[in-house]
Amino acid sequence: MTEQRESYRKLANAEAFEYMSGSEPVLIDVQEALAVVPGMTRETILTSGAPLPWDAYMGGQRDAILGAAVFEGLAENAAEAEAGIRTGAIQLHPCHDHGCVGSMSGVYTASMPVFVVENRTRGNRGFCSIYEGPYRERLTYGIYNETVHRNLLFIRNVVGPVLREAVQRSGGLPLLPIMTRGLHMGDELHSRNTAATLLFSRALLPHLMAVAQTQPAAVDQVVEFLGRSDLFFLHLGMAAAKVAADAAHAVEGASLVTAMTLSCREFAIRVSGLGQEWFRAGIPPVEGRLFAGYCPEDIGYIGGESLINETVGVGGFAQAAAFALQAYSGGSAQQMVENTLSMYEITVGEHPGFQIPYLGFRGTPAGIDIHRVTASGICPIIDLGVAHKAGGQIGAGVMRAPLACFQAAVGAYGERYRIQESGA
Amino acid sequence: MTEQRESYRKLANAEAFEYMSGSEPVLIDVQEALAVVPGMTRETILTSGAPLPWDAYMGGQRDAILGAAVFEGLAENAAEAEAGIRTGAIQLHPCHDHGCVGSMSGVYTASMPVFVVENRTRGNRGFCSIYEGPYRERLTYGIYNETVHRNLLFIRNVVGPVLREAVQRSGGLPLLPIMTRGLHMGDELHSRNTAATLLFSRALLPHLMAVAQTQPAAVDQVVEFLGRSDLFFLHLGMAAAKVAADAAHAVEGASLVTAMTLSCREFAIRVSGLGQEWFRAGIPPVEGRLFAGYCPEDIGYIGGESLINETVGVGGFAQAAAFALQAYSGGSAQQMVENTLSMYEITVGEHPGFQIPYLGFRGTPAGIDIHRVTASGICPIIDLGVAHKAGGQIGAGVMRAPLACFQAAVGAYGERYRIQESGA
Repeated sequence: MTEQRESYRKLANAEAFEYMSGSEPVLIDVQEALAVVPGMTRETILTSGAPLPWDAYMGGQRDAILGAAVFEGLAENAAEAEAGIRTGAIQLHPCHDHGCVGSMSGVYTASMPVFVVENRTRGNRGFCSIYEGPYRERLTYGIYNETVHRNLLFIRNVVGPVLREAVQRSGGLPLLPIMTRGLHMGDELHSRNTAATLLFSRALLPHLMAVAQTQPAAVDQVVEFLGRSDLFFLHLGMAAAKVAADAAHAVEGASLVTAMTLSCREFAIRVSGLGQEWFRAGIPPVEGRLFAGYCPEDIGYIGGESLINETVGVGGFAQAAAFALQAYSGGSAQQMVENTLSMYEITVGEHPGFQIPYLGFRGTPAGIDIHRVTASGICPIIDLGVAHKAGGQIGAGVMRAPLACFQAAVGAYGERYRIQESGA
Repeated sequence: MTEQRESYRKLANAEAFEYMSGSEPVLIDVQEALAVVPGMTRETILTSGAPLPWDAYMGGQRDAILGAAVFEGLAENAAEAEAGIRTGAIQLHPCHDHGCVGSMSGVYTASMPVFVVENRTRGNRGFCSIYEGPYRERLTYGIYNETVHRNLLFIRNVVGPVLREAVQRSGGLPLLPIMTRGLHMGDELHSRNTAATLLFSRALLPHLMAVAQTQPAAVDQVVEFLGRSDLFFLHLGMAAAKVAADAAHAVEGASLVTAMTLSCREFAIRVSGLGQEWFRAGIPPVEGRLFAGYCPEDIGYIGGESLINETVGVGGFAQAAAFALQAYSGGSAQQMVENTLSMYEITVGEHPGFQIPYLGFRGTPAGIDIHRVTASGICPIIDLGVAHKAGGQIGAGVMRAPLACFQAAVGAYGERYRIQESGA
């Protein structure tokens, strides 16, 4: 009987894995969030993580939400924004419920431009905001001030429209070939996106050149911005990962993780066969390399959903593709290889589109099975940026997803599918 | 007494290594060869390798030389070109003696555009032709036909002038930072230049955009060409390597190799403290991966001087930076690591500008000492393209420089510096 149920789960996971790894993400548009994000309104702010009561938001994530409200013109200042949130005049929603994934605090407002990515295999769409640039101070990192405001206007009024016209002219830019090549060129597509950004820029270039014939100054600015934004592709990869993970969601009986997310308080996961429920736990510590002048006591947690990349088999799961990451987030080449190899223990497949040259082009470990995590005690490895508790980036590092999330999910799975779980 | 001499050699090698590894190559111009290459005349053809009597040239290298003469208008056809070479109306010289390095057959004629690279540390200049494009048939690969002719005109009339204007507008593009980053992104800068090409294109882009304001169609063509020419940077890297190697040449008492070259008949090396003499040997076999439909019997040797890259510590010496190369030229990641590690046995230093992420950012092995080669029996590893005996590229692979060149050089060194060589 148990064997039958395990075989059933195996089939369900195989189906979910096929949907995830067979995704063909194409950047089809760049539009303001209001126009394309399902359920978006002028008064909605999206933020990272499983939803919390307002009073639980703190530090950089709280600052980012309030700053977003002011940026959008929903309030004159932070106090007014807070009042609006309390009365419900401003509505706070989790990104994931709107097809979005948030970088760090992950705040989206109605007028912000977003990438629109379509999974050509299954037709589903996902969205991600545009990278703010290589600045320590960013709204996504919990800072809202005059400089950040001006830069958000630049993204909204210059970068968004130029990219929109170029992407529309292109007829759609396939992202999977860029991610595949990025992994062959030292990116793991989370903390390192240098190659993917260059490859994306190259693919976009002929269309940018065409746009330049009517808007030379704006295109020059965008080219300059792309030229110094090595992490630019991160948000495109996140949208691509989101459509892949969503494609694998809601497969009856599947125990694959389809989302991992951080708020300022919690780590949480969702599972394909377990509906919309978030399985939550406290935030584990991040170990990494801090920029000069910062110490571990400075580290704060402000949310983050770029872990969607690990969910589909890149980022921490592909460290062995990105040895240069040592210089950014610490570690050693040997440790990176071991990290990647250990992820094969908790995943159900090897991604056909994501290969690791060092491992003889073996596919990356992809499709985290909650049962494999609890049985092995090996937790997913996540590469991520590190924030100051008062906002701003202060480094990069590695985090292990907390076991408790997976244990809670396994419990719920057993209950829902009435399987006696013996840990495997 | 021997100890004193060894200490003297060590000092001389340290000086030569410093000149080589301290080179700061900057692309300062793109000009027709006649205008910038020292000693170039309208009737001169440069070709790869230590010079041979005309009758010794064969196969693709012979065809390339004759084709170059016709392309340049020095002859109506191959027979007339050959007659011109025999009478001396057309003069055939080795690239290296004119500050140039040749890709494969390496033919240069007066009207061909060349990269002008200056070593800002020492002021010396080097030159390299422009990559012809990702075609199996190229003049450098020993093929001259209507298609190759048209493409050479495109390089001369479109690519050269556009690059010239963009480079001049840039005020000079430093190449070392591009090479440094390329090695962090999976290039070894010989058989793999994908990242360096993207980084170079990005650095050039603002200047190309400026040129586009007056010549939009030509810039579009160049952008399109750059976009599908992953090996484009190879020729820039070669010019950069040439100025570094030349900077280390003619240091009295130094036993560092300052050039390795191939003709269709011979492998040859030059040594810093041994003047202009070439130390020659037969060509060792190349092992690699051939394109579909070709077998080892098809392989031919048509010359090649891209081994200048190995001479300064990249290419085969940096295989551990480019695991993705397995897919192009064969081998395994483990073998690549071992190959790089073994090169530390025959070199005098670690290049401060070329680091290998997998080895914890250790500098690449650089500065081949002829005595270390003969003492260890370990020969330099060279990555290179593989030509068909009738011309055209049919694959890529790895070659070991022949021990006999180094033995001959050690003999000459002993004679010149009157050291009793005991093999070390």
